[in-house]
Amino acid sequence: MERNIEKAFAFLIEIDKMKTILRRSLTYDGSKREDDAEHSWHLAMMAMILEPYAPTPVDITRVLKMTLIHDLVEIYAGDTFAFDVKGHEDKLARETAAAEKLFSLCEEARPFRELWEEFDAAETPDAKFAASLDRIQPLISNHLNHGHTWVQGGVTRAQIDARVAPIREGLPAAWDYVQSIIEDGVKDGFIKP
Amino acid sequence: MERNIEKAFAFLIEIDKMKTILRRSLTYDGSKREDDAEHSWHLAMMAMILEPYAPTPVDITRVLKMTLIHDLVEIYAGDTFAFDVKGHEDKLARETAAAEKLFSLCEEARPFRELWEEFDAAETPDAKFAASLDRIQPLISNHLNHGHTWVQGGVTRAQIDARVAPIREGLPAAWDYVQSIIEDGVKDGFIKP
Repeated sequence: MERNIEKAFAFLIEIDKMKTILRRSLTYDGSKREDDAEHSWHLAMMAMILEPYAPTPVDITRVLKMTLIHDLVEIYAGDTFAFDVKGHEDKLARETAAAEKLFSLCEEARPFRELWEEFDAAETPDAKFAASLDRIQPLISNHLNHGHTWVQGGVTRAQIDARVAPIREGLPAAWDYVQSIIEDGVKDGFIKP
Repeated sequence: MERNIEKAFAFLIEIDKMKTILRRSLTYDGSKREDDAEHSWHLAMMAMILEPYAPTPVDITRVLKMTLIHDLVEIYAGDTFAFDVKGHEDKLARETAAAEKLFSLCEEARPFRELWEEFDAAETPDAKFAASLDRIQPLISNHLNHGHTWVQGGVTRAQIDARVAPIREGLPAAWDYVQSIIEDGVKDGFIKP
């Protein structure tokens, strides 16, 4: 495909839909469910602020791009709730089809495919760091909102421990903070022991 | 100030407020007013996609950071409507005070002050490119929403011409696209001739 700025703008118009894809998590003030665009912006901000705490140096440009694009496939595949077992069964198939459709809308979006796959695999240092941010951001939301999705989903401590496990390697400097949030959640009865 | 990850998280919690600061512009589907977090995410996406069209090479890392943080001061200073003459009289004073307060909440946010000032001055190639994106993004919103804020504000073609003027230098590759949007707006009666 050749570069074509009209197609680039068509893509930028299409991805505006991220602003209307609601996640289960609330904004930190509890006033509304946050959407994918807000969530992605917040992760990018976390990347900038927490970069000095990464366990090994990360390529901040790649991490910023990953956080910004990591949920784009949800435009066609929808958001899958973190603790929805059934929804996760066909998540990869739905999202791969979405990636193929969305990232071929313009030449400049093509590199997003590889970047999204790298984020999803969470194997490189950049992806491990980015994935950690993606686990911490909704954790803080529940912490500030009486356990919101933990309570809704009847979530157990074992489920949350599994969910946050990647942080131990991706952002160990935040491990104590994460643990204190989980312990508060259990103590307050928002997380099943 | 020393690095302190608890303060870093306090800052990241404070800036969640960006998700509740409403702009005048609608999302492209017209379903709601967009907020500062959504807008900032969209500009960062525009920066990634439109980078190859920049008139001189830009430092994409710096541009991404600029787009992500350029409206943070509105957490304390509020959003000022583009065509609000009175609001612009004390905009700089309000926003400078906000920057001093917000960017001293944690050590890692300190560099945002200079980056925000660079964006606002729009004199460097990176800032000119970023500022152009900030002018195009709401233009497309009005184009797709029957002239929304143009009609609300009784905006004239001369006002819009002045508003988009920086694009001629910051992203000339988009100039024809921008002009066609403005001409449609005049033709459809959404912009006063």
